[in-house]
Amino acid sequence: MSNIYDRAYSLEKAIRESDEFNVLKEMFRIVMNDVSSKQLFEDFRNKQIEIQEKQMQGQEISEEELEQVKQVVELVQQDEDIVKLMDAEQRLNIVINDVSQIIMKPLEDLYHVKE
Amino acid sequence: MSNIYDRAYSLEKAIRESDEFNVLKEMFRIVMNDVSSKQLFEDFRNKQIEIQEKQMQGQEISEEELEQVKQVVELVQQDEDIVKLMDAEQRLNIVINDVSQIIMKPLEDLYHVKE
Repeated sequence: MSNIYDRAYSLEKAIRESDEFNVLKEMFRIVMNDVSSKQLFEDFRNKQIEIQEKQMQGQEISEEELEQVKQVVELVQQDEDIVKLMDAEQRLNIVINDVSQIIMKPLEDLYHVKE
Repeated sequence: MSNIYDRAYSLEKAIRESDEFNVLKEMFRIVMNDVSSKQLFEDFRNKQIEIQEKQMQGQEISEEELEQVKQVVELVQQDEDIVKLMDAEQRLNIVINDVSQIIMKPLEDLYHVKE
């Protein structure tokens, strides 16, 4: 049991020390230290969350909202630092997803092989 | 980078060798080898998934469905092996959730401390 927690902490340390995480951290710092990039990034995030929540609740997204999102996305794509930040997020997400799949494998094997 | 994957596999091995996982595996084997327990467990799972999907889509659950679920739950609670299986599932889930929280900590720290 304690073995699981020891190894989880050791994995957490490896993530924290990885290039993927440190590039993300640095890009996040750069974006957060630029007033206009910070504002734009937060607008984008909030719009994203808003849309996701509506989709999850089965609500329709209005033409107007789609237009707003399109505008924010266009602005975001022109901000090199935000693009790099989102790139770094995506790279770390791939690693985290891989890790999740690896550690969920025992449960997956159990439920799918024996049924 | 490879360090992350090495440690993820090492964690996966610890999960696979844990008491929590092996108790679950054994209870799953017992339930799946009993025709009536297997059927009941699968009915219960399917009902659960059905209800969850409806809730996620914001659909209402009818009185009739609630009644059906109640009946399955009552039967499940009388099946000692299924109760033990669900207990074992819950115990392993706690461990898996702890592990997820531990490995998501770097990302959480990044997004919540610096904002």
